[in-house]
Amino acid sequence: MEVTEFVPTPEQYAFTFGGVAPVQRVRPGDALRLWSDDAFCGALRSVRDLPSQRLTMPYVNPQTGPFFVEGAEPGDTLALHLVSLEPARDWGASALIPFFGGLTSTDRVVTLQPPLPETTWIYELDRAKSTVTFVANRSDHVIELPVEPMLGTIGVAPAGGEAHSSLVPERFGGNMDVPQVRAGATVYLGVNVEGALFSLGDGHYRQGEGEACGTAVEGAMTTTVLVELIKGVPTPWPRVEDDATWMSVGSSRPMEDAWRIATGDMITWFADLFGLDPIDAYQLLTQMARVPVANVVDTNYSVVVQAAKSLLPHASAYHGLHRELRQRAASLTAG
Amino acid sequence: MEVTEFVPTPEQYAFTFGGVAPVQRVRPGDALRLWSDDAFCGALRSVRDLPSQRLTMPYVNPQTGPFFVEGAEPGDTLALHLVSLEPARDWGASALIPFFGGLTSTDRVVTLQPPLPETTWIYELDRAKSTVTFVANRSDHVIELPVEPMLGTIGVAPAGGEAHSSLVPERFGGNMDVPQVRAGATVYLGVNVEGALFSLGDGHYRQGEGEACGTAVEGAMTTTVLVELIKGVPTPWPRVEDDATWMSVGSSRPMEDAWRIATGDMITWFADLFGLDPIDAYQLLTQMARVPVANVVDTNYSVVVQAAKSLLPHASAYHGLHRELRQRAASLTAG
Amino acid sequence: MEVTEFVPTPEQYAFTFGGVAPVQRVRPGDALRLWSDDAFCGALRSVRDLPSQRLTMPYVNPQTGPFFVEGAEPGDTLALHLVSLEPARDWGASALIPFFGGLTSTDRVVTLQPPLPETTWIYELDRAKSTVTFVANRSDHVIELPVEPMLGTIGVAPAGGEAHSSLVPERFGGNMDVPQVRAGATVYLGVNVEGALFSLGDGHYRQGEGEACGTAVEGAMTTTVLVELIKGVPTPWPRVEDDATWMSVGSSRPMEDAWRIATGDMITWFADLFGLDPIDAYQLLTQMARVPVANVVDTNYSVVVQAAKSLLPHASAYHGLHRELRQRAASLTAG
Amino acid sequence: MEVTEFVPTPEQYAFTFGGVAPVQRVRPGDALRLWSDDAFCGALRSVRDLPSQRLTMPYVNPQTGPFFVEGAEPGDTLALHLVSLEPARDWGASALIPFFGGLTSTDRVVTLQPPLPETTWIYELDRAKSTVTFVANRSDHVIELPVEPMLGTIGVAPAGGEAHSSLVPERFGGNMDVPQVRAGATVYLGVNVEGALFSLGDGHYRQGEGEACGTAVEGAMTTTVLVELIKGVPTPWPRVEDDATWMSVGSSRPMEDAWRIATGDMITWFADLFGLDPIDAYQLLTQMARVPVANVVDTNYSVVVQAAKSLLPHASAYHGLHRELRQRAASLTAG
Repeated sequence: MEVTEFVPTPEQYAFTFGGVAPVQRVRPGDALRLWSDDAFCGALRSVRDLPSQRLTMPYVNPQTGPFFVEGAEPGDTLALHLVSLEPARDWGASALIPFFGGLTSTDRVVTLQPPLPETTWIYELDRAKSTVTFVANRSDHVIELPVEPMLGTIGVAPAGGEAHSSLVPERFGGNMDVPQVRAGATVYLGVNVEGALFSLGDGHYRQGEGEACGTAVEGAMTTTVLVELIKGVPTPWPRVEDDATWMSVGSSRPMEDAWRIATGDMITWFADLFGLDPIDAYQLLTQMARVPVANVVDTNYSVVVQAAKSLLPHASAYHGLHRELRQRAASLTAG
Repeated sequence: MEVTEFVPTPEQYAFTFGGVAPVQRVRPGDALRLWSDDAFCGALRSVRDLPSQRLTMPYVNPQTGPFFVEGAEPGDTLALHLVSLEPARDWGASALIPFFGGLTSTDRVVTLQPPLPETTWIYELDRAKSTVTFVANRSDHVIELPVEPMLGTIGVAPAGGEAHSSLVPERFGGNMDVPQVRAGATVYLGVNVEGALFSLGDGHYRQGEGEACGTAVEGAMTTTVLVELIKGVPTPWPRVEDDATWMSVGSSRPMEDAWRIATGDMITWFADLFGLDPIDAYQLLTQMARVPVANVVDTNYSVVVQAAKSLLPHASAYHGLHRELRQRAASLTAG
Repeated sequence: MEVTEFVPTPEQYAFTFGGVAPVQRVRPGDALRLWSDDAFCGALRSVRDLPSQRLTMPYVNPQTGPFFVEGAEPGDTLALHLVSLEPARDWGASALIPFFGGLTSTDRVVTLQPPLPETTWIYELDRAKSTVTFVANRSDHVIELPVEPMLGTIGVAPAGGEAHSSLVPERFGGNMDVPQVRAGATVYLGVNVEGALFSLGDGHYRQGEGEACGTAVEGAMTTTVLVELIKGVPTPWPRVEDDATWMSVGSSRPMEDAWRIATGDMITWFADLFGLDPIDAYQLLTQMARVPVANVVDTNYSVVVQAAKSLLPHASAYHGLHRELRQRAASLTAG
Repeated sequence: MEVTEFVPTPEQYAFTFGGVAPVQRVRPGDALRLWSDDAFCGALRSVRDLPSQRLTMPYVNPQTGPFFVEGAEPGDTLALHLVSLEPARDWGASALIPFFGGLTSTDRVVTLQPPLPETTWIYELDRAKSTVTFVANRSDHVIELPVEPMLGTIGVAPAGGEAHSSLVPERFGGNMDVPQVRAGATVYLGVNVEGALFSLGDGHYRQGEGEACGTAVEGAMTTTVLVELIKGVPTPWPRVEDDATWMSVGSSRPMEDAWRIATGDMITWFADLFGLDPIDAYQLLTQMARVPVANVVDTNYSVVVQAAKSLLPHASAYHGLHRELRQRAASLTAG
């Protein structure tokens, strides 16, 4: 199986979902190997590189894409299976950006207080040990943490002629910052426009749930992805499936609304998967959901509702596509 | 070691934190074996028992207590170590209560829509298999789920002469619905009044994160708890420690504020545990926190911020009390 | 008509609704003349008096009461008609209290930023001109503003054995900070406990909507109030009536929930007043409501939904009680 | 002075801010007379016209524009002075749209409840009496209400290549639903893209604050507007000035954030207008702001913070432009 490589030039970076012409056409079944720059466009390379000096707002969180998927139409579902995520640099960066993050006032949570001190942390990647290293800025602490590569951002063009900053998580996906969007996962996104126009980026070498300060261990990433299309099946909000778990991702404000969206969608999905009445699905989920917060720092907050397959009867979503993609991915890797 | 047993009469049930006279005096170091009724006061025993007919609002979620801890004063921390939680009946109950829960309008999220259909589910407990069984109300589905006993509610009297319904999670603990409040965990609560006046109850044989519909698998519980007091050390918001994890629990509305509280408290705790500057603790947590939602259904929503001990340098909280309590618990169980 | 005077000693100040023994028994029909201290217990008397030095948290916002109303039972409505509000000192005070107010991080909206600078403003009262004078702290600006006395806090004991800080606005009234709670207004409060146990205080010589920084022009007040009881008629959330306007007050978080509560209650009230179906009342209110924000600074936020009588058919609430109380008040004042 | 007329064809209706090519170029100083269709594209003309049958989501709330303003660049402020708003039809319409509005679950506030009953109300306009007439759907009530024409939507293209539905209120203006956006008001909008690209529409013959059910008395409107440009002066969030009042409009979720934005912006504006330090401006606003809620039904909620000029020292915003535009408007009307 052939894999199409794509490395965008900086001029090709996409900073919105929607409103951008496709960089390339692909077909359902295609395998792509995509390089994406980090959320800072690679501008923070040392602890002395401060965001206000190095970043050009709002030109952050560059996406690789969009890709036009042949045959994709509104009402279809795009499936993106993540075969592998490989750190493409030997370091990642994180930063406190003035008035950005979860424990600071922001342009929304306006207060009259001064910003927190701008700070940049650089995490060296040790490929042998598969760690990134936290080096404290204000003391001598050094702590090694496991590398757990994920994509903060993946999405399609929104409906209704809208275009949203790549900083936004929404119904179309985008900057959801879900740690489970990693190798082995299939992301399902409802198609809103002809060609779907998907993009991805915002590689994180590691991220905690909530992404408290607003920036993970941001790193350039090489992502191998299988593209598939489920014709005539809509997907209202982003869903993620891996071998162990069904997941729905809600993004809104306040955070309880993100939860309501994801829980409501999972109940809809349970009706499809198991034939459960919504009232029974609501009850069952009450006793078994896992609900990690994904981010509390973006323009919308994201919450994931997870259902463990091991606790549930056997079921197949989207005609069993995830299992099939896992097999194709295995043969791809073997090849 | 002696264990004091206490089974409240229905007249002794406490429906508030604060405003209730103590049922008994205990001493730091005491072991208690406490029976608590389920959140429905045992009134839902069949799928034909509907909440509006059987429950007398607001007299739900009865607590066992309060206990006056000798020597406890404002500014101290009460530690409650959960040695064991044993289901005290052979069934649990869950229900859709009109205008209560996460996916319905409520007395706060007011809409003009009618309530969801009142429904009661009964979960039979199989002690041999250690399961409870979900039986769908509107189809033939039957699903066995593992028993995972926990306490939905544990807390002390609030400060400032306040008294809050046992349905409320707040700074004083209360109805936090945190699944990690289970056997093996130590709960730390700041003392607000002389004697601390702690209560506990709301046993759940099982609960998913978020407690979507508002009621878990509610069951009477026998809880063995070790009581300890840390003099002169305040605890601003409830914390939980088990062998693997440090946890802070925030409860407020909207849900992002619950997260802010818990994250802020964990940063404070990291300063104590590791000597990290708050700015560095904020960064470190960003890359490693786990953040499950506990409930989205109470008068306040609860969010847990967790830090895995395995990822962090060795540290001891509250003079290493948790480890010590684990040992005492082991000897108690052995005895 | 006789007027009962009551001036509490500092030991009689009530700092909660609920949980406090009554200071006096009164009867429906009674007129009371009540002195209340300012929200700072009179402790801020100069711009050099800083909150952190002078205030003893949580002992702020002292209430005068509670009064036991003979014959009041759960399910009744207490009507408190404000005959007059007279500033009882020649100055009011306002202050920035650390981590308190609408444009600062708080104990709920936790951030890592330092607090705003503590600042106290003293407003001299000119009785002849009926003004209070703003004197800027950091420049030479001096601005005279009209005196518009109101009560920030008025309420009854909550249901279910609860007791809430006098800083809280809730279903039982409390710290709603509604500028329309002024002379000429009738406040309706649902009775939750025998005797109703109402208190009032938190006089404001003037307050803008939202009470942005958290403290109005706080001043000791002498309030003349007529007490009435409507037997067998419940009131779910606080309502206010004056000659021109029907008002419902919702208090919750997030602020949209306060609005939902107040709008829902006004729709219920419209059904009573006019016989309108809720769907039609919803539509009518959509085109005519006025919706000022009362406060965005308390533990709950308060929003007022107002309906102008001039736009509506003639109707009488609570058997025309407001009109009758206005007449009684007039005769009282004349007397 | 010449007035340019523009009536869009249905094909020219704009359904987003951003992402749409200009319909015409205009110059600072120009007067325009613009026809805009109602928010339903004129599709609801009888109480039997139900939204789900007649509306094509998301193609609602059509805007007239965008207009390219010559010379406008990012960092400038566009001033749009509303000379007159004239109802362009003899009736307006309002409707309950399924899962849309303030007292229903929505696509964000997800619940499992069924939608409210779809209902359409038609308001006949009596030009002589200057009234619109509410006719109840479920009873015989008929209530005449004064016509008070306003624009629900006015805005410019957003920054960063974004395009937002015309249903959205945001930093760029849009669907703010502010009743004070009426004849005699000047709206100030920060310019984000070359030419500013402003549009307007969503005429309301009348609207209450909060726009509870989600739709006002929606009517086609003829708006006469004067266009001006303030070079080199940015405006962070929409502001409105009329003869009596300064206003800032914040739009976000939860609603307290909309309030924070507007209050913060007004404090910034007070610094410009009066030279007040932010801390003093915060205090002054606390005692004098009026804070009506504009809408609680859109994708963002909108709150207006108002400061009465009569209470403040004399000051001129944007070089006294509002006064000048009022004079030009007067001569235009006279002509």
